Amino acid sequence: MALHLLTPTHLHHPSPSSPLPRRRATATASLAHPLRPHPRLRLATAPSPRTGLRRGMSAIRSSLIDPDGGALVDLVAPPERRAALRAEAEALPRVRLAAVDVEWAHVLAEGWASPLRGFMREHEYLQCLHFNSLRLPSGGLANMSLPIVLALDDAAKDRVGAAPDVALAGPDGQLLAVLRSVEIYPHNKEERIARTWGTTAPGLPYVDEAITPAGNWLIGGDLEVLQPIKYNDGLDHYRLSPQQLRDEFDKRGADAVFAFQLRNPVHNGHALLMNDTRRRLLEMGFKNPILLLHPLGGFTKADDVPLPVRMEQHSKVLEDGVLDPETTIVSIFPSPMHYAGPTEVQWHAKARINAGANFYIVGRDPAGMGHPTEKRDLYNPDHGKKVLSMAPGLEKLNILPFKVAAYDTVAKKMAFFEPSRSQDFLFISGTKMRTFAKTGENPPDGFMCPGGWKVLVDYYNSLQTEGAAAAPAPATV
Amino acid sequence: MALHLLTPTHLHHPSPSSPLPRRRATATASLAHPLRPHPRLRLATAPSPRTGLRRGMSAIRSSLIDPDGGALVDLVAPPERRAALRAEAEALPRVRLAAVDVEWAHVLAEGWASPLRGFMREHEYLQCLHFNSLRLPSGGLANMSLPIVLALDDAAKDRVGAAPDVALAGPDGQLLAVLRSVEIYPHNKEERIARTWGTTAPGLPYVDEAITPAGNWLIGGDLEVLQPIKYNDGLDHYRLSPQQLRDEFDKRGADAVFAFQLRNPVHNGHALLMNDTRRRLLEMGFKNPILLLHPLGGFTKADDVPLPVRMEQHSKVLEDGVLDPETTIVSIFPSPMHYAGPTEVQWHAKARINAGANFYIVGRDPAGMGHPTEKRDLYNPDHGKKVLSMAPGLEKLNILPFKVAAYDTVAKKMAFFEPSRSQDFLFISGTKMRTFAKTGENPPDGFMCPGGWKVLVDYYNSLQTEGAAAAPAPATV
Repeated sequence: MALHLLTPTHLHHPSPSSPLPRRRATATASLAHPLRPHPRLRLATAPSPRTGLRRGMSAIRSSLIDPDGGALVDLVAPPERRAALRAEAEALPRVRLAAVDVEWAHVLAEGWASPLRGFMREHEYLQCLHFNSLRLPSGGLANMSLPIVLALDDAAKDRVGAAPDVALAGPDGQLLAVLRSVEIYPHNKEERIARTWGTTAPGLPYVDEAITPAGNWLIGGDLEVLQPIKYNDGLDHYRLSPQQLRDEFDKRGADAVFAFQLRNPVHNGHALLMNDTRRRLLEMGFKNPILLLHPLGGFTKADDVPLPVRMEQHSKVLEDGVLDPETTIVSIFPSPMHYAGPTEVQWHAKARINAGANFYIVGRDPAGMGHPTEKRDLYNPDHGKKVLSMAPGLEKLNILPFKVAAYDTVAKKMAFFEPSRSQDFLFISGTKMRTFAKTGENPPDGFMCPGGWKVLVDYYNSLQTEGAAAAPAPATV
Repeated sequence: MALHLLTPTHLHHPSPSSPLPRRRATATASLAHPLRPHPRLRLATAPSPRTGLRRGMSAIRSSLIDPDGGALVDLVAPPERRAALRAEAEALPRVRLAAVDVEWAHVLAEGWASPLRGFMREHEYLQCLHFNSLRLPSGGLANMSLPIVLALDDAAKDRVGAAPDVALAGPDGQLLAVLRSVEIYPHNKEERIARTWGTTAPGLPYVDEAITPAGNWLIGGDLEVLQPIKYNDGLDHYRLSPQQLRDEFDKRGADAVFAFQLRNPVHNGHALLMNDTRRRLLEMGFKNPILLLHPLGGFTKADDVPLPVRMEQHSKVLEDGVLDPETTIVSIFPSPMHYAGPTEVQWHAKARINAGANFYIVGRDPAGMGHPTEKRDLYNPDHGKKVLSMAPGLEKLNILPFKVAAYDTVAKKMAFFEPSRSQDFLFISGTKMRTFAKTGENPPDGFMCPGGWKVLVDYYNSLQTEGAAAAPAPATV
């Protein structure tokens, strides 16, 4: 996929007659003292003599965008309930999760999929497949484009029988959660794949990983997890929940939050558009726009750069000053990746609403990939931003589409593409970047900060060393 | 497909606390004199001395359900404009339609797809594929589940070039319409098929008829047809437009209209559920529920009973008194058939809203068929009514799901299935019915009225005669 970057052309949802997005008045009004370090507290009672702050935080309303359905879902059992819940789970029929199912349990438990309260029952699954949205009790719609479902094979279905509740265990057998008032219904894989990806061609990474090997039934219900889900991979401190992110945005006094979803290393083209977005938000009148740099942390395909390498690379980008740490929060989005293009980009945007983002940057071919069996992009590269801008339930989110950027060989930096001097621009594809890193060749100056680039070179070197170690020695050279 | 019929279990959309559907108060309130023959006129001016009625019909509001988007679309040029429009069309680049495209032009022109005003442009196509609905200027949603698109091959695209308007001609070359402010965009057939049918298996009838042979581009725009589209097949008098149907319902003083979509002969099981629906609507307090018996008249698959035979059969059913002609309107729904199950049933319901129906009967596996390559139903037979009951833009329609009915061998008639005496019931599948008709064997007494049955027997006899005439004589017997 070419590293086509984009610059904001227009804001979709705000009325054309009003240059400021809807949230702005509320947001700035709540920040009478934007330089005060903890402006999140709307003070309702007397200040504490110790902290200078007042009590009653639970009654305090954030100025951030409302979560879908009005309240952030939190499905982690409170500490005082955990022993009893574990005892209950021990006695229930047990369903074993695959690694990717645990990632979804994590996503659900922290409320990224609010108002969803567990793996989908059939009525939710059907709304998701057909309408990319869920009907709210209020009559409105929440966006929900990817089925968050748990598959069950025949043996597991027999084991569950007519039990109303089941226990969920991780791949290692450790108890993770209880799923209540369960509903079991057929898993029509062909239909799920066709309606989610718009193709049934063999070779879709998520299908190969999580659908083809899965059972022919789905089990939905209300989820309650025994304790926060951790991966113990040294990166858990990056995995802020939507509530933790909201708290952090409030603490920093954000009056606008713009999210950038990625699953690739950050180069200076990405940085350009993130910095340009901030500049534009300031121009619009926001005082303190905060960037949520939000790499996806769940399942990705084999040739994507692994999460630990990406996180190290992202750290270097902040260390090297390409992005401003004062106005940037780097955190991991725990969702698995579907590579389902226009269908998936809605999920990526919707989840960030729940984390408090009211601006979402969308580029060329979001969540896209090559067609698995044909020589073309799987999706029309423009469909992602078009679908996103029209999606039910995302009206309150400001979509920021970007026009293409590339390496400017005259200015020797990444810049927004100018068709009038197209000969000056160089498009560096992901494949080309990878080839540079693998062969030790340097990309053009200004493509990526040196610290970040070194992380990639080291990673590809380690792969080659591993490959050499793992492969049998060649008989002849 | 088995002839499983259903009896109303509950109304989906009306609030559970109010047994009467939302429209009822309005409808009955407008019918202060339900026995008056022409209660459609809300009298605003002095009565005409000749008719006793008053003038100003165009300002008079019907009590029927509102069309999608608030007003019924009418894309037929008024008579005084036709000569000029034809002259204009003669000078435009010309696009040749296939027979099925003409059916869609007909559907669009009469406003069945209101608020759609022509073949879809890309933003409408994407909303349809992803959300099964279209955003209205008001911010609300209109249901729109099937792409109503016009395909163009490379040569036709070249011919159109950058022209803003094109002329549309029928398969015979005769000018039919003008399409204005056109937009040409890629026709990704794989994605269209996968998202519409939930499968890409070969052998889907509509795909084979209308997509596979079609071009790789789609052209959308605003449609204006030169004159009402007619088929000259002796059935045009059955093809009432949504406006004509609304006028007829008003003329009959309907305070509820319940639509029954079908593409098969009517047997006594169908009649049972239609009559049962009427009985229930009367019980609910409606004074004059009218049945819209609405066979689909566009493209159907080769082994479905052809439209002229079905219309003859339907006439016999009314002649034989199985349905009451006083409270039934038989009309042809001009749409082609997709056989796209839960996706298509939304279209079938939505179009009937535009024709004035506020109740829609839905049975088992609506618009379904066998999987083209696997030994199973293509769709879960329950998904149609579930999806329909949750579909965006159909909230104002009352969905009437039916439970299964079959032939009661004790009562010797079609009856709602009673599980407690399941041994008494006989399920007569479509294949079985066809075999009866082909072999001249009679179905059980009470399965279908004799007049209607004879129509089918004669049709299959004629097929066999034709087959015998067309086939070479066997060498030996």
